[in-house]
Amino acid sequence: MKILMVGASGTLGTAVRKELGQHHEIITAGRKGADITMDMSVPESIASMYKAVGSVDAVVCTAGQAYFGPLHELTPELNEIAIMGKLKGQINLVLLGLDHVHDRGSFTLTTGIIMDSPIIGGISSAMAGGAIKAFVQAAAIEMPRGIRINNVSPNVLKESMDTYGPYFPGFEPVSAGRAALAYRKSVEGAQTGQTYTVY
Amino acid sequence: MKILMVGASGTLGTAVRKELGQHHEIITAGRKGADITMDMSVPESIASMYKAVGSVDAVVCTAGQAYFGPLHELTPELNEIAIMGKLKGQINLVLLGLDHVHDRGSFTLTTGIIMDSPIIGGISSAMAGGAIKAFVQAAAIEMPRGIRINNVSPNVLKESMDTYGPYFPGFEPVSAGRAALAYRKSVEGAQTGQTYTVY
Repeated sequence: MKILMVGASGTLGTAVRKELGQHHEIITAGRKGADITMDMSVPESIASMYKAVGSVDAVVCTAGQAYFGPLHELTPELNEIAIMGKLKGQINLVLLGLDHVHDRGSFTLTTGIIMDSPIIGGISSAMAGGAIKAFVQAAAIEMPRGIRINNVSPNVLKESMDTYGPYFPGFEPVSAGRAALAYRKSVEGAQTGQTYTVY
Repeated sequence: MKILMVGASGTLGTAVRKELGQHHEIITAGRKGADITMDMSVPESIASMYKAVGSVDAVVCTAGQAYFGPLHELTPELNEIAIMGKLKGQINLVLLGLDHVHDRGSFTLTTGIIMDSPIIGGISSAMAGGAIKAFVQAAAIEMPRGIRINNVSPNVLKESMDTYGPYFPGFEPVSAGRAALAYRKSVEGAQTGQTYTVY
């Protein structure tokens, strides 16, 4: 398959790229260091990317910014970071990409455990995750030409524990490699509308 | 209690106002026909409303616009209607209202069955509902001064079946009066972080 990956340079993205790259052709898109330079918070940038790529069998997104900080510091402006990135960015990858995905192709988006099991400071990311999960379930029943859509919700990653560990007390970290398997299940499997939790 | 209601003139809001008005003082806010004129899609308008209201025991929102239409017609621009209204509008009522709610007061927001059981044309509303549900669960663990936050997710309303019935085949409609009870449970009860489904 020809797979378009957004966010392939992050900790999770690197593992997903390694997992999918064994059997598929990967094209990467992102703000820097990618095959195609693209800012997913700008719809025009997403449209330009699809024009450059043409058509693919699968779109996988492991990117999506969000502000982390306590409720009493969360302003409408800071909440906008997650809305522009993790929420609208991922949704617009689907809305603007429908005509660029082959029959029976797929979209795989990323959410995260915080939407199910909240942590201090994670409100904005939880909100975006909840939006993506519901979007995926609703969009799945309307996808044309057998196109599928799922999302993967990983726990905190083992590889990120030095940085994020203190924010996830008692959470059982998973390896990025294990989380990457769920993306393969989404891309190569036949299910749709699913949230694959890797907890 | 002194309760600020946003969206009190709609089908659901009218029933909630009737239920809560039996025992509480209600102040209404909205785009028209309310005690205070306010557009929840504009943060400055929300801030002005709170300045005019002062402080309250509870904030109840039964408002929130969303575009209804099939996936193949859903553009980033049309999806923005739900993001500005139902999603950010409700969230900003909380973020900008925290200092205007008394100790042990509450926020009650509105989602809807579509986020759990999607219908054709309801993607945008489902997305906003999912965001609000996750936001509520995450914000609940960080609320200051014993303030609580819940959301009510009603099924399609009996009173709306003439208009919306064809979009909800096989759904079991509930009366607005029954849905209104869940708002009372949220306002007068002691639970927080909950999604009260009225299905």
